[in-house]
Parts: sequence; structure tokens; C-alpha cells
Amino acid sequence: MNYKMIGRFLSQILMIESVFMLPALIISLCYGEMVAVNSFLLTLAIGLAFAGALYGICHRAGRIFGAREGLVCVGLSWIFMSLLGALPFVFSGAIPRYMDAFFETVSGFTTTGASILSDVESLPRGLLYWRSFTHWVGGMGVLVFLLAISSGSGKEGFTMHLLRAESPGPDVGKLVPKMRQTALILYVIYIVLTVINVIFLLLGGMPALDAVCTAFGTAGTGGFGVYNDSLTSCSPYIQNVTTVFMFLFGVNFSCYYLLLLKQFRAVFKDEELRLYFAIVIAAIVAIAINIYDLYGNLSDTIRHSAFQVSSIMTTTGYTTADYDKWPAFSKGILMMLMIVGACAGSTGGGIKVARVMLLFKSLKRSVGQILSPKKVQVVRNNDRPVSEGVLSNTNAYLAAYLLIVVISYLLISLDGQSIGTNLSAVLCCFNNIGPGMEAVGPTCNFGFMSDLSKLVLSVDMLAGRLEIFPILVLLSRRAWKRK
Amino acid sequence: MNYKMIGRFLSQILMIESVFMLPALIISLCYGEMVAVNSFLLTLAIGLAFAGALYGICHRAGRIFGAREGLVCVGLSWIFMSLLGALPFVFSGAIPRYMDAFFETVSGFTTTGASILSDVESLPRGLLYWRSFTHWVGGMGVLVFLLAISSGSGKEGFTMHLLRAESPGPDVGKLVPKMRQTALILYVIYIVLTVINVIFLLLGGMPALDAVCTAFGTAGTGGFGVYNDSLTSCSPYIQNVTTVFMFLFGVNFSCYYLLLLKQFRAVFKDEELRLYFAIVIAAIVAIAINIYDLYGNLSDTIRHSAFQVSSIMTTTGYTTADYDKWPAFSKGILMMLMIVGACAGSTGGGIKVARVMLLFKSLKRSVGQILSPKKVQVVRNNDRPVSEGVLSNTNAYLAAYLLIVVISYLLISLDGQSIGTNLSAVLCCFNNIGPGMEAVGPTCNFGFMSDLSKLVLSVDMLAGRLEIFPILVLLSRRAWKRK
Repeated sequence: MNYKMIGRFLSQILMIESVFMLPALIISLCYGEMVAVNSFLLTLAIGLAFAGALYGICHRAGRIFGAREGLVCVGLSWIFMSLLGALPFVFSGAIPRYMDAFFETVSGFTTTGASILSDVESLPRGLLYWRSFTHWVGGMGVLVFLLAISSGSGKEGFTMHLLRAESPGPDVGKLVPKMRQTALILYVIYIVLTVINVIFLLLGGMPALDAVCTAFGTAGTGGFGVYNDSLTSCSPYIQNVTTVFMFLFGVNFSCYYLLLLKQFRAVFKDEELRLYFAIVIAAIVAIAINIYDLYGNLSDTIRHSAFQVSSIMTTTGYTTADYDKWPAFSKGILMMLMIVGACAGSTGGGIKVARVMLLFKSLKRSVGQILSPKKVQVVRNNDRPVSEGVLSNTNAYLAAYLLIVVISYLLISLDGQSIGTNLSAVLCCFNNIGPGMEAVGPTCNFGFMSDLSKLVLSVDMLAGRLEIFPILVLLSRRAWKRK
Repeated sequence: MNYKMIGRFLSQILMIESVFMLPALIISLCYGEMVAVNSFLLTLAIGLAFAGALYGICHRAGRIFGAREGLVCVGLSWIFMSLLGALPFVFSGAIPRYMDAFFETVSGFTTTGASILSDVESLPRGLLYWRSFTHWVGGMGVLVFLLAISSGSGKEGFTMHLLRAESPGPDVGKLVPKMRQTALILYVIYIVLTVINVIFLLLGGMPALDAVCTAFGTAGTGGFGVYNDSLTSCSPYIQNVTTVFMFLFGVNFSCYYLLLLKQFRAVFKDEELRLYFAIVIAAIVAIAINIYDLYGNLSDTIRHSAFQVSSIMTTTGYTTADYDKWPAFSKGILMMLMIVGACAGSTGGGIKVARVMLLFKSLKRSVGQILSPKKVQVVRNNDRPVSEGVLSNTNAYLAAYLLIVVISYLLISLDGQSIGTNLSAVLCCFNNIGPGMEAVGPTCNFGFMSDLSKLVLSVDMLAGRLEIFPILVLLSRRAWKRK
């Protein structure tokens, strides 16, 4: 393990984060929120001093990097980013306790959207912007950003490992041969889509800062809102726009790249996209039938059903209705969507549609092999054979997923809440959704939980966003050996 | 697919079941329960007539049998056995509705122990005996019994497939080269252990029939009791005896065979047995600490904790305390134990300790492979390498397990119960435990559920007992092709 190399990498990440705080600082200045301005300045000073010191110690490190270093870099970067990003909340007194601020920041970067705040409208505007911005940058990934802007000095192999560790999905496809260009293309698509989303919200009469923050939450599939009731009291137009954009940000970004290349046929034939679309439509219809009696007219029913389905499936977590009061069947469908999550290569969380599809296909093969033991059977995706390595990793992912859910559930249950609360809290944090059911439902927050629970859920959010292995590797003794 | 062969096989199974009803008939006669006697006679007439007709049509079938036929035979046998075994309850009026009686009988054969009855003490003694006997024969398997008594006319390959399909665990070890002898040895160990259990219960002053029925429920890790409050009002001695025997019936039976061969070292070194023991002890201690305040003295605390842990982990389902009132942490541990289940090759259900161990090991290997991609890494069990086929099947098992849990949960949730009720009902039926939590907790029963839910849970119980694939194959189009 090349410690100096990792130190230098971390110093770069912290410097980028400090730069990212400048817009929030400026917004605070414009609104004359001097407490927020001071806390951002103090955070910047600490961040830059720490990053500078780290760079000073580690800048002479070599260049050789493997998968192990890549994973450790990703895991540590996200932890340090959250540690630093929490400071403005504490210094400004908006969230006095550090554990709470850390939970909120992890929830932001991981695009979870689980909050410990009951009254977000009273936050200084600069902090509100920072809170939503963490979603946006966390959605596509800070390391992907670093790749996109870096001079390409790093080895192609290492950047591949980084991108693979931070990007969601069973198998990261390069869009173009160069990793740096892939990262750049992803960010450009991301920025363009976000800007279009902001424009649509502005057309609906939303104030500018609110529109930007809401679009950040939508783009990152995060779910931190700027109003206390999420989007419940927004106009149906704003709600519908958000429904559509949440869905769009849950699509694999390589599909947009293919659209730019006018390869419409490949997009139309993409198996994951088709399944994603089919699940969303089926869930909207099933829930609409189930909740029709609650709303009494078709347009409200469809609007609320579509919004919640899009929000939960893409793991955003915005709400327009208290789905905790919906019938058990609808809640069951929502819980299923929570676990499945969005498409691989999108900003959404969860197990990912592609992975679920692979699990099904490999299950089907297992049944086939029992029936015809001598026939060689290959799992295919979009007509290409899937390697056994990807399949075995997908299965390992599922096992790790279950293991983390079970251990987290046990630790959370020390707080003494109900089965529904504990299970949905773990699932919602691990799958980066945000609000859960019962005591952590859409009208509630996570503030009442013990510090241990908040820590466990913070680790879950990180493990969920980074797809488990970068966090699992940090806990492995072998990763820390000097060779 | 050789339909005639399957028909002949089913006729044999139904004849054996008819013979198994004779002791219950005799007990009814002794107690002068004429309604029960008549209903058993009517069932026998129907069963023998049906089996005879089936044999008449199909007895000329050939002998060649493959894995596919083996799986279909196992799946269909269990369904037909349950369809026939439910009749005495309906004819006697003890359970007037056929769906309820079917649920109860499936619950019996699959050694689940989930009941729709609120008052078992009012049942005729003959029916009570039959209800408990289904646990006993279901625990070791009817097809294994058929193998043990059959003249060995079947092909060794086919009997292997049968045993593999009906016996629990990731990899069925033959005790001796001949399958028939293996089946015989298993049944002899099973009978001897059951008799010892009965003797211990008689020594505690339990009435003879009650002792036999309770031992049946313990041996099959079933959980149908003869008292309305399960074992709550039994003496501490009876409770402790049952704790120990539930634990013993959760051990892989090949360990007992090794003990008979005086291979103590192999038993002592068995990794699954060690892990099983460690989990039980850890769970007892953790729960005891958590519930100490409820009981106030060490002996009661340990007794209730040990009983419930042993009962849930082995998926028996007897209770001495209403664990639904225990703190959330203890309930969390119990839910974890429900999922893990007992050892492979025991009468217990669940995912099985051996399978959980393999999942962990293959997860550990995946992390190892990420860290050192070029090193060849082999998963080992008891110092022998585990084949990739077994590993991939274990992973497919987990995927199928989750799929069934999710679909069942959705269907059950149409009844509108709470998350805790729905989830624990599915887990308890699928893992063949019996009582769940909240509305299906240890003091409640499944009677209030809709027919759809009862049907879904019946399928879950069968899928859980037969380890999914024999039931999954019945749903596969390929299995029914004529070749």
C-alpha cells in the first residue's frame, strides 16, 4: 500500500471540495448571512490548511497504482469529504451537534436525502445551497469530476479503477477509449440535463435559488428539499416536471451518449432501460389502482402515484404525499422499488436494475442446468455474453448487501423502534433513498435516533453509494498491508 | 418427461401416506372418537382408490429417470400428500374449510408449525396425533422413507436425485455408497433420537400421547403443540429437555453417523457444527442480557432465551414466552436466526448454516480477488475445496430465496397488515418456523388471513422445505416438455 500516494490524492480531493464551497459562500454574502459566511470561511481555512499540509508531506509519492489503492482512495475520499463538508453546519449553529451534521453531509454526498432537520426553511440560504449542492456533486462523483478536469497525468489503469469504484453498476462501460474523456462527457451531459431541469422549474414560477436547489436534488437523485413538506405544496406542474426529471436521471448516462451519437436503435433495444421503464409503468398502474379511493379522481391519483414511484425507484426521496398512510400493498411495492433502485451508470442508488436482471438470468440458468446438466449455458445481456467474473461479482454483491442489511438492522434495533421503522431506515439509507416508513416516514426525520444508529446509517449510506466494496476493503486487514 | 413414471411414483407415495394414517385411526378408536374414525376411514378409501387407479394406469412405465423427473416427483409428491392429508380435518369438521385444512397440513409436512387453529386442545386426540405425525415424517422426508424401505429396484442415479431434492443443504453427502442404505441409516438415527426424547419427556411426568406428539414436533423441528400456549405452562424440566432436543435435531445427521463410527475428531472439527454452536451460544447470551430486566432472575432469563433461540434457529417454533413483547434488539436477533436456520442435513429449515458459511467465504474471496486480481483463490470447507458448481448454486439459491420473499410479501400485503406482520409471516413460513411477529406472533395464529395469503404461504412453506428448486421446476415450462 502506497500511503503517500493516497495522502496526495486526498489533499487534491479536499482542495476541490474547498473550491466547491465558494458559490455557497457567495450566496451567503449576497443574502447578508454573516454567520454562514464566517462558518464557510473557517471551514475553508481548515480544509485548505489540512489539504496543504497533507500535500506537503505526500507530494513526492510515486505513481504506481493498483485496484487496491483505487478502492482505498475512493473510500477515504468520501469519508474525508463528509468530515469537512459537515463543518459549516456546526460552525453556523444550524446543526449544533457534529454527529448530526456528519449524518446530514453523508446523506447529502451519497444522494440519500435522509435528514435530521425538522425545519429546513429556517436554514441560511447559503447553507441550504451547500446542502443541495452536495447532492449534485455526489450524484456523478467527486472523483469522476477530478478525472474530468485532471491533466491526464494519472495512469489509464488507475483512473479506470477509480471510475469503476465510484460509478454504480455491475460493469462499467467506457464510452470512449480514454477514461478522462469519458468522465468529461458524463459531466457535460449531467450539467446540460440539470440546466434544462432548472429552466423547466423556473417556467413554473419557482424562485431561482429554490429551482437550482430542487434541480440539484433531482439530478443527484438525492432528495433534500428546500421546503419543509418536500414538494407537497408545489403546483402539479412543478411536481410533474420533477417526476419526469427524476426518471430521466435514473437512466444509464451512456444511453444519453448513444442518443447524441444518434444510435437510437441501441438505446431502444437496451434491455436494462426497457426493464426499468416496464417496472416504473407497472408500479404506477398497480399503486394507482390501489390508492384510487384515497384521492377520488384520476389525475391526482396518477400524479401522486407516478411521483412517488419515480422518486423511490430512482432513490431520490422527494414526496408529494404521505405514502406511509397508503395501503400495505402500495407500501410493499414501494419497498420493492427501494431495493431494486435505478439503472446502472445513473446517479440513482439501490441494487440497480442491471444487477437484478443479471441475478434473474443467472437464476434461470441455474434452473436450466438442473434440468439439462450437460448443456453449456451462457448468460447474455444485450445479446453479448456476460463473463463469469461479472456474474460471480454480482452474486457476491448480493451476499454483501444482505450481510450489511442484517448487521445494520441489529444495531439500529438497539434503539427499540418497530420492525417497519428499523427495516425501512436501513433500506432507505443503504439504497440512498432518504425517507422510509413509520417513524422515519416521509413526514418524519432521523433526528430522534441515537448516535450509534446515525453512525451505522452513515456507514450504510457510504457503502450504498460506493457499491459496498470500497467500504468493505477499508475494513479488510489485507488492504492495509505494505505489500 | 416420463408422465407414467411420475404417476406410478405418486401412487406409491399416496399408499405409504395411507398406511401412515393407521396409527391415528387406531388412537381415535381407543379414545372412542367416532367422528374422527369415520373421517380417517373415508380419507383412506379416497386415498387408496386414487392411488390404485393411478397405479393401474401407470404401472407399465419404464425405468429411466433423470434429475428433471426427480425434481418433479418430489414437488408433486409433497403437494399430493398435503392434498390428501388435509381431508381428515375437513371430514371431521375440526377444520371445516378445505383451504384452512390444506394450509395446516402443508404446515405440518413442511415442519413449519404455523397454525390457523386458536384452540388445539379441543381437537380429537386422533387428529392431534395425525397433525403432529405429519411433522415427524415431513422432517426426514417421505421420499427418503420410501427409499429406505424400497427393494432397491430404482436406479442408483435416480434415488440420488430424489435424496438430493428432498434433503436440505447445499451439497448432499452420501454416508455410504448405496443410497438406500444411507436413507435407512438416517431413519434409524432419527427414530432412536425421537424415542430418547419421548423417554425424557415421560420422565418429566408428561402424559404418553402428549409426550409422543411433542417429540414428533421437536424431531421434525415442526412446532405444532398439543397445548394452546405451546410449552409456556410446562415445567422448566420439560422446557429444558425440549431446548436440548431441538438443538440436537438441528445438527447435521451425518455427524451422528460419524459419532457411531467413533470419528469424534471429524465431528469436533466440522466447521458448520462449530459455527452453529457459536451462533446459538452468542444469541442466547445477547438476548439474555437484553431481556434480563423482564424476568429479573438469571435462571428464568437463560431458560427462556435458550428455549426461544433453539426453537427459532432450528425453525421449530415452540414457545415458552411471548417474544413479540421482547425488546427490538432481541426480536432482531431472532429474525436473523429465522433466516439462517439450522444445519444442512438436519430436519431444520432456513437458508442453512452451511450455505450462509459458503456465502461468507465466497464473499471473502470476492474481496480478495479485488485486492489481488491475479491470484487464484479457492473456497474451502472442512479443508476440502468447494466446487464452483456448488458455489454458483448457493448464490442462485440466495437469489431465488429473495425473489420468493419479495413476491410473497407483495401478495400477502394485499391483506393490509403491518410491515412487521407481513415480513415475519413470509419469513416464518418460508423458513418453516411457524409463529412470526406482531399479528402472527407466538400468541396469535394465521386464521385471520385471506385465502390468497394462505395459498401463497402454503407455496412458501413447500418451497422452503424442498429448498426452492423442486417447486421452481414445477413452474418452468421446460420441465414439462416431452423431450
